[in-house]
Amino acid sequence: MLAIDETTITEAALAQMESTPDPRLKEIIAALVRHLHAFAREVDLTPEEWLNGIKFLTSVGQKCTEFRQEFILLSDTLGMSSLVNAMHDRRALEDGTKSSLLGPFYRQDSPTLPLGASIAGKGKQPDTVIYGSVVNTAGEGIPNASVEIWQPDDEGWYDLQKQDPSQMDLRGRFYTDSEGRFYLKSIAPTGYMIPMDGPVGDMIRAQRRHGYRPAHIHFVIGAPGYREVVTALYLSGDPHLDSDTVFGASESLVVSVNPHDDASPYPDLKSIRFDFQLAALAGEAESGRVGADPSQILQKAAH
Amino acid sequence: MLAIDETTITEAALAQMESTPDPRLKEIIAALVRHLHAFAREVDLTPEEWLNGIKFLTSVGQKCTEFRQEFILLSDTLGMSSLVNAMHDRRALEDGTKSSLLGPFYRQDSPTLPLGASIAGKGKQPDTVIYGSVVNTAGEGIPNASVEIWQPDDEGWYDLQKQDPSQMDLRGRFYTDSEGRFYLKSIAPTGYMIPMDGPVGDMIRAQRRHGYRPAHIHFVIGAPGYREVVTALYLSGDPHLDSDTVFGASESLVVSVNPHDDASPYPDLKSIRFDFQLAALAGEAESGRVGADPSQILQKAAH
Repeated sequence: MLAIDETTITEAALAQMESTPDPRLKEIIAALVRHLHAFAREVDLTPEEWLNGIKFLTSVGQKCTEFRQEFILLSDTLGMSSLVNAMHDRRALEDGTKSSLLGPFYRQDSPTLPLGASIAGKGKQPDTVIYGSVVNTAGEGIPNASVEIWQPDDEGWYDLQKQDPSQMDLRGRFYTDSEGRFYLKSIAPTGYMIPMDGPVGDMIRAQRRHGYRPAHIHFVIGAPGYREVVTALYLSGDPHLDSDTVFGASESLVVSVNPHDDASPYPDLKSIRFDFQLAALAGEAESGRVGADPSQILQKAAH
Repeated sequence: MLAIDETTITEAALAQMESTPDPRLKEIIAALVRHLHAFAREVDLTPEEWLNGIKFLTSVGQKCTEFRQEFILLSDTLGMSSLVNAMHDRRALEDGTKSSLLGPFYRQDSPTLPLGASIAGKGKQPDTVIYGSVVNTAGEGIPNASVEIWQPDDEGWYDLQKQDPSQMDLRGRFYTDSEGRFYLKSIAPTGYMIPMDGPVGDMIRAQRRHGYRPAHIHFVIGAPGYREVVTALYLSGDPHLDSDTVFGASESLVVSVNPHDDASPYPDLKSIRFDFQLAALAGEAESGRVGADPSQILQKAAH
């Protein structure tokens, strides 16, 4: 009989998982077991600390609802989502606009709106035009590309965080014109704290991190034949650009809010301009979406 | 501004966590971040695989109830609980009986029973005596030591898995006599499958593991001045002794069911005999309990 002890347990666990028929699943779980055990050995984890970890992970799972994905937030705050994004970008055949985090506030059922429409909800006067082009790596405009946008309001709240999270606001889907251009009206977002009322918030406080994300606007850009990019634009001057709690902000994605812009389709409004560059689709069918609609995740998770 | 990419993200995450005031928490999370990132890099984790991981962990958390702890089950099936146990035993000042898994079926409110009582529920005729001594490392009996016992029935089910999980059966707490002896009546348990109706069961099936635990009886043994030991006895001859799904079975904890035993306090019954050896208490106040009452965990997790 195998004597299982501190040194043999890892090999014993890997041996028992040898029967896994899917080679990729086998590779991933084997690597996970090795790294998880190496972590426990390195810190000489005690039963009490282990139990605290079990309780923490349980509470992260139990905090998830149709409108909230606390495990994505945990992954984001540990830098894991940002790493997965960066590796995804490296595997692309061509360089395009860098990915950024999808985050927990994406919804798949955003309304499709005509170019020039405002995504600011009723009562909010749009004061900013967001415009630019979707281009290929040769710089040529891509007609009819899909531009999904979502953002928090000028106090840092997304629609999903409001009293009635089923009411959509500050999000929409646009399609580029025949020259690849898009333009829409909105308000400039402010930075905000990640949701701090759950176990991830407890962790951030215990670490004395500020919990803020710099002001940003989310995008998913796609067109047939091109690699979908999930990204975000970050507003220059925000004090938390260098210390984003979820490690999403990146220099190539920083934009300015211009008080006056003669090139804008609405020169009377402030403007944010960015051209998104899409790489040709790689042969692989890998999905580019780091993160997803929380309600969809939970539906799938419940079988 | 820091350019966060595939190579710099780990240092960026660690730098942001530098402010953690508790040195042990800082050490543990820093090690976790390094090993988690190393895992993702080694397997070149894709966004789709990452999302499947998020969904899996979410469903593990959501499967937990007052009577079920699916995260402990996940830790058990990955060999993590067994590793934490083994490291805990190594830190003891003296060698005593080896630890084994607490598992998800422990309850703190077990009834205290007199020596010789049966823990087999109504309708079940006890046919086995479980007896032995609790001794120190010099082999001397420890009077009034606490012996908590719990086990599945002869079909492999614990009380917590039955129709009404609040009804207790096949568990109890005994105290040793003036010479350190304990004895009680029960039935011999059979091996059983871990709960397979949750996400951990899905994983075990995807890995083509059989899911069985060899037949065993759980114990928590404690006495003032001694190190509490959480352990289990495994019945010899069980076909899954070498392939325990949760890596708890260990050679030094295997016992035989003797059809006749003149030394037993009830020679007409089958017998299981084991002497538990407790090490003197180390100076450190570390808890020895790997695992805990699920209801207690969830109450704490919910604040």
